[in-house]
Amino acid sequence: MRIVEGVLDANDTIARANRADFDDAGVTVVNLMSAPGAGKTSLLERTVRNLEGIRIGVLEGDVQGSLDADRLASLHVPVTQINTDPGFGGECHLDANMVRSALPAVPLDELDLLVIENVGNLVCPAEFRVGEDARAMVCAVTEGEDKPLKYPLMFRTCELVVVNKIDLLEHLDFDLDRFLYNLDAVNPGVRRMLVSARTGENVDEFRAWLGDLPARAGIGAAVKAPA
Amino acid sequence: MRIVEGVLDANDTIARANRADFDDAGVTVVNLMSAPGAGKTSLLERTVRNLEGIRIGVLEGDVQGSLDADRLASLHVPVTQINTDPGFGGECHLDANMVRSALPAVPLDELDLLVIENVGNLVCPAEFRVGEDARAMVCAVTEGEDKPLKYPLMFRTCELVVVNKIDLLEHLDFDLDRFLYNLDAVNPGVRRMLVSARTGENVDEFRAWLGDLPARAGIGAAVKAPA
Repeated sequence: MRIVEGVLDANDTIARANRADFDDAGVTVVNLMSAPGAGKTSLLERTVRNLEGIRIGVLEGDVQGSLDADRLASLHVPVTQINTDPGFGGECHLDANMVRSALPAVPLDELDLLVIENVGNLVCPAEFRVGEDARAMVCAVTEGEDKPLKYPLMFRTCELVVVNKIDLLEHLDFDLDRFLYNLDAVNPGVRRMLVSARTGENVDEFRAWLGDLPARAGIGAAVKAPA
Repeated sequence: MRIVEGVLDANDTIARANRADFDDAGVTVVNLMSAPGAGKTSLLERTVRNLEGIRIGVLEGDVQGSLDADRLASLHVPVTQINTDPGFGGECHLDANMVRSALPAVPLDELDLLVIENVGNLVCPAEFRVGEDARAMVCAVTEGEDKPLKYPLMFRTCELVVVNKIDLLEHLDFDLDRFLYNLDAVNPGVRRMLVSARTGENVDEFRAWLGDLPARAGIGAAVKAPA
């Protein structure tokens, strides 16, 4: 797969340039991923309402449209939209170049934290670094216990797994213990949170994780651009 | 996007070859797509149990593993597994060449109907014909009303949209009328069914749709290989 490797090498070079710009501006960046409809935007809506002392912005990745960006912009958060269609061929993920092309529109000097909400997809987004400090994913309990085993790269590449829609647990056959067992099989001991973006249950935990990120020195230093 | 077009042209050539093989064997083929966890496999489990008079087989596409194939094989349905990782670079969709590579393992002579269960993804699977007669998708009500607007190509390319998990409607804020409005906005009047693979509600309707397919002469004739 020499072609694929070449593409990923080129992507990493641009990701390092993005990273250098984020570092220069003192902005911590999170790449937030999930399947379609897992609740990334709902989680962010709940989170930004009470995120005190941190200036947060969102870079919103979608194939088409600006539905999620509109939802977040209504909460007075600076939001920049990237559409992968048509400019980037309707890609199923964000890559470093797409993020780079959007940076002139992101007010980095006014932010402490930038959340990049990726395209809803459990496969390709995990393959492309975009210059982020941390990767997090949302997995809804409605998706079934088997998802870590079926999409292991995604679950392995994240340092936080937010298990969403727990308000529905009592109405599902979902076996939470089995899901967590499968999660540990692909990413042993990865940090996880059980939340409901709909009711707000445990969203404080995600808010605290986000809020702590800018202070965590040296995070992701291994992929930092050389000085 | 000349490169992308070249790839899709090459894919269509192989798709026509697959189609010719399916036609020669008298097998009708459905490409079944959805987001991860929408319930494709659960729907098939419910369906094949009582599919009388039709010999059905499944070609199961996953990035990795054979969890879904194992579930279906336990119902004594001929199942063939395609993994896109590592043989095909961990692709997020099936293409015509992957399906072609699996055909020697599919007992076409013993089948009337072959369901190709695609990789869980609402973007790329819609871009690649694999030689199918019909395309159907499953969308779970847990995914939200906005999905047709966010992934329009997928909803537009299917002739049947199965709206699954309706047993959960009473526990969700999901606005079914709004979802159907959005669906008609991208694919006006497309056939839709409201089902619960979990309880079995309305699965008869999907079973009847599948059962009628082999008799529908001339379906997809436009993409048939020349004689």
